[in-house]
Amino acid sequence: MSSGEWFSALGLVAWLCCLSLGPVQGGKVLVMPVDGSHWLSMKILVKELSQRGHEAVVLVPETSLLIQGSESYKTEIYQVSYTRAAMAAMFNQLQEGVFLKPPVITDIFIDIERLINFTSMQEKGCESLLNNQPLMSQLKGGGFDLVLTDPFLPCGSILAHIFSIPAVYFLRGLPCELDTKANQCPSPPSYVPVSFTGNTDIMTFPQRVKNMMMSIFESYLCKMMYYNFDELVSRHLGDNLTYKDIISNGAIWLLRYDFVFEWPKPLLPNMVFIGGINCEQKAPLPADLEEFVNGSGDDGFIVFTLGSMVSNMPEPKAKQFIDAFRQIPQRVVWRYTGVLSDVPKNVRLMKWLPQNDLLAHPKAKAFITHGGTHGIYESICNAVPMLMFPLFGDQGDNVHRMVSRGVAEKLTMYDMTTETLLAALNRILHDKSYKEKIETLSQIHLDRPVEPLDLAVFWTEFVIRHKGAAHLRIAAHDLNWIQYHSLDVFGLFFIILVTVLWVTVKCCLLCTRMCFRKGTSKRKRE
Amino acid sequence: MSSGEWFSALGLVAWLCCLSLGPVQGGKVLVMPVDGSHWLSMKILVKELSQRGHEAVVLVPETSLLIQGSESYKTEIYQVSYTRAAMAAMFNQLQEGVFLKPPVITDIFIDIERLINFTSMQEKGCESLLNNQPLMSQLKGGGFDLVLTDPFLPCGSILAHIFSIPAVYFLRGLPCELDTKANQCPSPPSYVPVSFTGNTDIMTFPQRVKNMMMSIFESYLCKMMYYNFDELVSRHLGDNLTYKDIISNGAIWLLRYDFVFEWPKPLLPNMVFIGGINCEQKAPLPADLEEFVNGSGDDGFIVFTLGSMVSNMPEPKAKQFIDAFRQIPQRVVWRYTGVLSDVPKNVRLMKWLPQNDLLAHPKAKAFITHGGTHGIYESICNAVPMLMFPLFGDQGDNVHRMVSRGVAEKLTMYDMTTETLLAALNRILHDKSYKEKIETLSQIHLDRPVEPLDLAVFWTEFVIRHKGAAHLRIAAHDLNWIQYHSLDVFGLFFIILVTVLWVTVKCCLLCTRMCFRKGTSKRKRE
Repeated sequence: MSSGEWFSALGLVAWLCCLSLGPVQGGKVLVMPVDGSHWLSMKILVKELSQRGHEAVVLVPETSLLIQGSESYKTEIYQVSYTRAAMAAMFNQLQEGVFLKPPVITDIFIDIERLINFTSMQEKGCESLLNNQPLMSQLKGGGFDLVLTDPFLPCGSILAHIFSIPAVYFLRGLPCELDTKANQCPSPPSYVPVSFTGNTDIMTFPQRVKNMMMSIFESYLCKMMYYNFDELVSRHLGDNLTYKDIISNGAIWLLRYDFVFEWPKPLLPNMVFIGGINCEQKAPLPADLEEFVNGSGDDGFIVFTLGSMVSNMPEPKAKQFIDAFRQIPQRVVWRYTGVLSDVPKNVRLMKWLPQNDLLAHPKAKAFITHGGTHGIYESICNAVPMLMFPLFGDQGDNVHRMVSRGVAEKLTMYDMTTETLLAALNRILHDKSYKEKIETLSQIHLDRPVEPLDLAVFWTEFVIRHKGAAHLRIAAHDLNWIQYHSLDVFGLFFIILVTVLWVTVKCCLLCTRMCFRKGTSKRKRE
Repeated sequence: MSSGEWFSALGLVAWLCCLSLGPVQGGKVLVMPVDGSHWLSMKILVKELSQRGHEAVVLVPETSLLIQGSESYKTEIYQVSYTRAAMAAMFNQLQEGVFLKPPVITDIFIDIERLINFTSMQEKGCESLLNNQPLMSQLKGGGFDLVLTDPFLPCGSILAHIFSIPAVYFLRGLPCELDTKANQCPSPPSYVPVSFTGNTDIMTFPQRVKNMMMSIFESYLCKMMYYNFDELVSRHLGDNLTYKDIISNGAIWLLRYDFVFEWPKPLLPNMVFIGGINCEQKAPLPADLEEFVNGSGDDGFIVFTLGSMVSNMPEPKAKQFIDAFRQIPQRVVWRYTGVLSDVPKNVRLMKWLPQNDLLAHPKAKAFITHGGTHGIYESICNAVPMLMFPLFGDQGDNVHRMVSRGVAEKLTMYDMTTETLLAALNRILHDKSYKEKIETLSQIHLDRPVEPLDLAVFWTEFVIRHKGAAHLRIAAHDLNWIQYHSLDVFGLFFIILVTVLWVTVKCCLLCTRMCFRKGTSKRKRE
């Protein structure tokens, strides 16, 4: 056995030796969530873990907007260096301008800049936690079995590294596809569409050129976007480690993926697909809301929300919606926190609405959405066709997926008019193909051997039981870029080829020269 | 939306439109198995499908050795152009020489040649079936929902193509990794060891060089090995189709994989892992066998079999085993069809043995095996360490995996002596690390969200319910080699780069020339 093999065997054996065996007797899970909509689906898993006898401690920055205490889990609140108002302003900045200016190609740069500002602020929050020695000591001594975190922010994976415990990631994906890069999952740009390209998985030559250019650009984007995280990691863990290095240690990646939504692409053994996990949180509608939607008769009702972050819009824009809704027989439940006058009787404005429960109602006919992944999965689970208004971030790509599958119509918020809105709504409501296609997608999505929540719990418990999942980790993590792509091997082949050619040419030349000399001396002798 | 996107959307929509919805009301499954050990695990799935209300029709060549009728499924026997004796002789040829000659590097070529002869004979059997017009018409009108087949032989996927029904594949892997190639699953040779290299997933530079060379060689090997299949496909389906093209249409690949055995590597969404499915067939031991193994006391017993194909060996070799067994307190249950005199009391020879049931017995202490995948999974399921004698084919690689995980010892049949056998057996029986490590592997292997048999049934039924699994099929299948590797895109980048450089150089030259001329004429004027 060679040294490499011994290393492999020893590594695995080392892991095998230190395993704790037998069923989990109530594990301890340290949860490092990301505020906003990200928390909404992670919370479902945290509550379920708690119900199954595990102890979950959720770390919450004091400025949190959506992460609240619960009977199901403990919270540990830590101080940060910014105020809740500053945090809310940063959230608002992300949506700025989406209603009032035409979408242009440079939006991507504005989006990225705002995202960097947004994550930088939260990275400072992480810094505060890491420098909070009393809390850190308390956590270190807490006997946690794993960190459950969303690697959209860096703190969870840094804590897992510091406490030397495995990390389970809960995410849909990371900006500039850092998750794919860190986990070393192959992603050939010839059929895996890159974000912001507007490509599907089947591309023409110009689309593949665009995809490749964007894929190359993405590598630089990653460096730019994660600069602050890299600095944070380097400051606290040293050794020239980058954020990508740290998250590459994730034991299991719980991805909110399903191939009725995502394009099929290569995977790795430690990737587990739990798309649609957010559909599992079900409750009956409040009585007055049930009465309102049930009273919609055969026409049914429309659910309208632009996600947890956007609950308001400029009045002229809102008026356009109101004018359109006035002309349809359907009722509309609209999450809207602004003030609107002259709201027609078929429209009910709500500060917050039970989105999944409404979409699960048999009278739900259409869903007006910004194209966030939670809403899309709830639409698929409940087979409700969509009218989509992508606002920023990944929403453009999400919407593109749904439109190309024939289950949604797309409008842009800026140039929408009452007429275009009405026309699109009428298409979705009256052209049966939208409903039929989303019913089929829904049937495929719901036809699965294990429910996403059970799968997420299973793999979290697996990591607790076995102190990781080393047998699912590819060995590519031990290779550098040159080794991974076998460039050193090809280099050797090239050197051998050149040497052989050179020797052959030299031999030929030598032979020719000798023959020529012989001929000359023969002629001389003659 | 561009034409490419429309194509993508239309393709998916076309599939969505023709779906049969709702639960499966007893599907009809056409089973095209491969004789020998391959059938033993597929039979478990076929029986289970039948128990769950599906109708299975198994196509059996009249010369079949192991495929027999059953109450669970119908059989349709077809005539072939060779005799059972010729078939048995071909099986025997595969094992020829493994006991009497030293293993050398060129064995790989002998192995391949024998494998080609073996599969060629069965390809002729397939030809007989395809030319059997009455049977083909009967099958075509049989209303089958899918073909369940092992693509080790070509007939199943050809039938699926002819009858335009989806195919579900049941396999561990194909020679020269045609399964990976046909399904277009990435397999970077920098960390995915190629067959026959003796590499693990962690390789030194020389090992990576060897892996790459073998990977290149494999492509030529594939052409050689599947030449007959390609001809068959081309004769019956035309259009210059190859066997690789045909099997690339598989809806679901049920792979007898588990990462306690295989090295972790990239996957695709239509690959489902059912490693260990053969452990699920359990029955109590016959009374006399139970009495024999139970009477072994604290010393326990050893299970010894070299697979379904090798049940005999030259007498001197068998004597070596007998001499070793005579010196140990353990009892031995040995599958041996030859005649042996002077067999000690602690050894029982059997024509066929219930391998999994024996390994599942609490007194089973070791398993002497050739390293077939069925035996290995049964050893892992039941946590019994192994003494391994790889004979041919993939067994060398299989054994290497187990030895490098510290759960087995390896000997070669040729140079084994009574002493080396005794020493190896004693290490396995008395060094606790083998047992501890295989117990850990076993716990990880058995810790799964769904049992392999249930998973295999689920995905087979999924294909029946949805007439395929198009949403899991990567778009790489629509690309040629140049497109897949984006060589045309890089070509364009190269042309642009060269053009830009050429224009830049030309401009610089022009400027220099003009400046020079101006200087000259100025000096002339002066």
